[in-house]
Amino acid sequence: MKLKIAVLPGDGIGPEVTNQAVKVLKAIASEFDHTFSFKTADVGAIAIDKYGDPLPDKTLDLCKSTDAILFGSIGHPKYDNDPSAKVRPEQGLLKLRKELGLFANIRPVKAYKPLLDKSPLKKAIIDGTDISIYRELTGGIYFGKKELSEDGNTASDLCEYSRIEIERIAHLAFKAARARKQKVTLVDKANVLESSRLWRKIVTEVAADYKDVDLDFLFVDNAAMQMILNPKQFDVILTENMFGDIISDEASVIGGSIGLLASASVGETHAMFEPIHGSYPQAEGKGIANPIASILSAAMLLDHFELYNEAELVRLAVDKSLKLKITTPDINSEFDSITTSNVGDFIEDFIFNPN
Amino acid sequence: MKLKIAVLPGDGIGPEVTNQAVKVLKAIASEFDHTFSFKTADVGAIAIDKYGDPLPDKTLDLCKSTDAILFGSIGHPKYDNDPSAKVRPEQGLLKLRKELGLFANIRPVKAYKPLLDKSPLKKAIIDGTDISIYRELTGGIYFGKKELSEDGNTASDLCEYSRIEIERIAHLAFKAARARKQKVTLVDKANVLESSRLWRKIVTEVAADYKDVDLDFLFVDNAAMQMILNPKQFDVILTENMFGDIISDEASVIGGSIGLLASASVGETHAMFEPIHGSYPQAEGKGIANPIASILSAAMLLDHFELYNEAELVRLAVDKSLKLKITTPDINSEFDSITTSNVGDFIEDFIFNPN
Ligand SMILES: [Mg+2]
Ligand SMILES: [Mg+2]
Repeated sequence: MKLKIAVLPGDGIGPEVTNQAVKVLKAIASEFDHTFSFKTADVGAIAIDKYGDPLPDKTLDLCKSTDAILFGSIGHPKYDNDPSAKVRPEQGLLKLRKELGLFANIRPVKAYKPLLDKSPLKKAIIDGTDISIYRELTGGIYFGKKELSEDGNTASDLCEYSRIEIERIAHLAFKAARARKQKVTLVDKANVLESSRLWRKIVTEVAADYKDVDLDFLFVDNAAMQMILNPKQFDVILTENMFGDIISDEASVIGGSIGLLASASVGETHAMFEPIHGSYPQAEGKGIANPIASILSAAMLLDHFELYNEAELVRLAVDKSLKLKITTPDINSEFDSITTSNVGDFIEDFIFNPN
Repeated sequence: MKLKIAVLPGDGIGPEVTNQAVKVLKAIASEFDHTFSFKTADVGAIAIDKYGDPLPDKTLDLCKSTDAILFGSIGHPKYDNDPSAKVRPEQGLLKLRKELGLFANIRPVKAYKPLLDKSPLKKAIIDGTDISIYRELTGGIYFGKKELSEDGNTASDLCEYSRIEIERIAHLAFKAARARKQKVTLVDKANVLESSRLWRKIVTEVAADYKDVDLDFLFVDNAAMQMILNPKQFDVILTENMFGDIISDEASVIGGSIGLLASASVGETHAMFEPIHGSYPQAEGKGIANPIASILSAAMLLDHFELYNEAELVRLAVDKSLKLKITTPDINSEFDSITTSNVGDFIEDFIFNPN
């Protein structure tokens, strides 16, 4: 397969971890006879520094002309802590999502055996957890009409959804469930909200196309409990924007390390892959940044193009690195001198010589 | 102090646990020379059975004429599992809250030392947790305008708040924090929602009246993480209706037993106290229902009337019962023959003879 990939390393530890992901994708291309071409562009604080714009046209044009985007992280204290800053690095990411029509955010949450001890939850509860959360990303109350009364004493936000917004992400979720444990859980609040009742109706209709997948429903307040009591019960979670924000952030901490969590943002014609961790500027250049989230983002990229064996091999390599403790200090209390690129090298080697 | 208390035992285990709470309140009245009078009325499924109405006028009138309401629990499978049922037990509770103007729901979450092992969270994380959640109960998106387009393809819900709704519960939260650890955390999504920005503005204004209390802010998605990562950081949490629903339900499971969790619903002129557990009809009449949540609701009733020493003694008695394992089988793996009324009797005895 030929793939054109835009690489947007961004700020802080973004470049270091993205380098490892590119290394891994190159190894995969070589082993499986694919042609992946990479072009790098600036985004975030570094783009503001160079061009006064967190998402320069040049970067956006590159992203529009490629098959996929590998994104690092953005943000820098010099902008974040300056209330007078007119442009902020994060605007680059929001604009990119909007311009590319990325309507679905996908967040896997998995409990890795060698890291079970790091979870705030008890081992027995977290062991076996493997969830993929599909969060609608461009609709709902975050983007609905906002009003503030003239006297400043009343304010409102509108949560609105339409059929097409629900259908397109529902199809993605059901397709994903097919390749997993054949279960979709719709998280909503249909006992109270009209928009949730619309989600339930339309998702039930979509489910008719996927008779091999079970659909069940969970109110968001109950979901927030179940994520702690029994996260193993979940396979694919499908939900609207704000509920997805809350539930996926809650889920992100049960695994015990944010340094392992990848994500994808997907639209009809474009897709972007990124670690959920931030730019962590304090660690920049020290070689201590954990590249696994970025490498697992690359695995999600491979999945997106149905290169399942390739993605599986990357995940196998990651599992091996965790098992052998070839990991950075954030999750490694035994060996504290293993660097970002040591981890990338190990995973690259494993891809060339799996054993 | 003279207090007229309406007792609404309701359905399932409601009567059994409420009996113990009344027993405890009578012991307190006797020890501290108060005059508490109790009048009982029907609510829920039992009221439907008798009068065809989950909240008969007679019950509502009694509640309106008393100082406080001690509520059991409502719900019965014969109505819950019947989709054709025209009246449901739960309607009694919703109508009661509305008629009495109960705008604030208060939910304490505490980690009890003898029960630390029962939490899904690790001991070190949960130990020391002591939170009181103030959730706005009558406004926001649950009660805002709902619309469904004629073609059934678009739906919306409006989240609206006004100054008065925010001010009145903010004052309750700050007053509570004063008597606790002097900290209020406002949970909102002010980076995105106009209504959250109004909450932030007004709560900041109210905070000026409570210079001895610290106010901080937390986005709801972050709050959902922090509740798992470090619940000890919280003292009083103040939040709007839907965020409060999600966060308080999430918090309810971290302590390890729902059988201990009490709540209060408070308005300008009325107040109601109830366990958060349901009617649990399977356990009805077996003497295995845990009365502690109901007894702790009675302690919240005492607090509400500023009978702090009295409330403290009830809590001390509860702590003692947990420590000595004078508890029902749901939280007692050692002794499985201790009944609902055994627990109530022990707490009553302790109030008469604390040692
Ligand atoms: Mg978030
Ligand atoms: Mg709830």
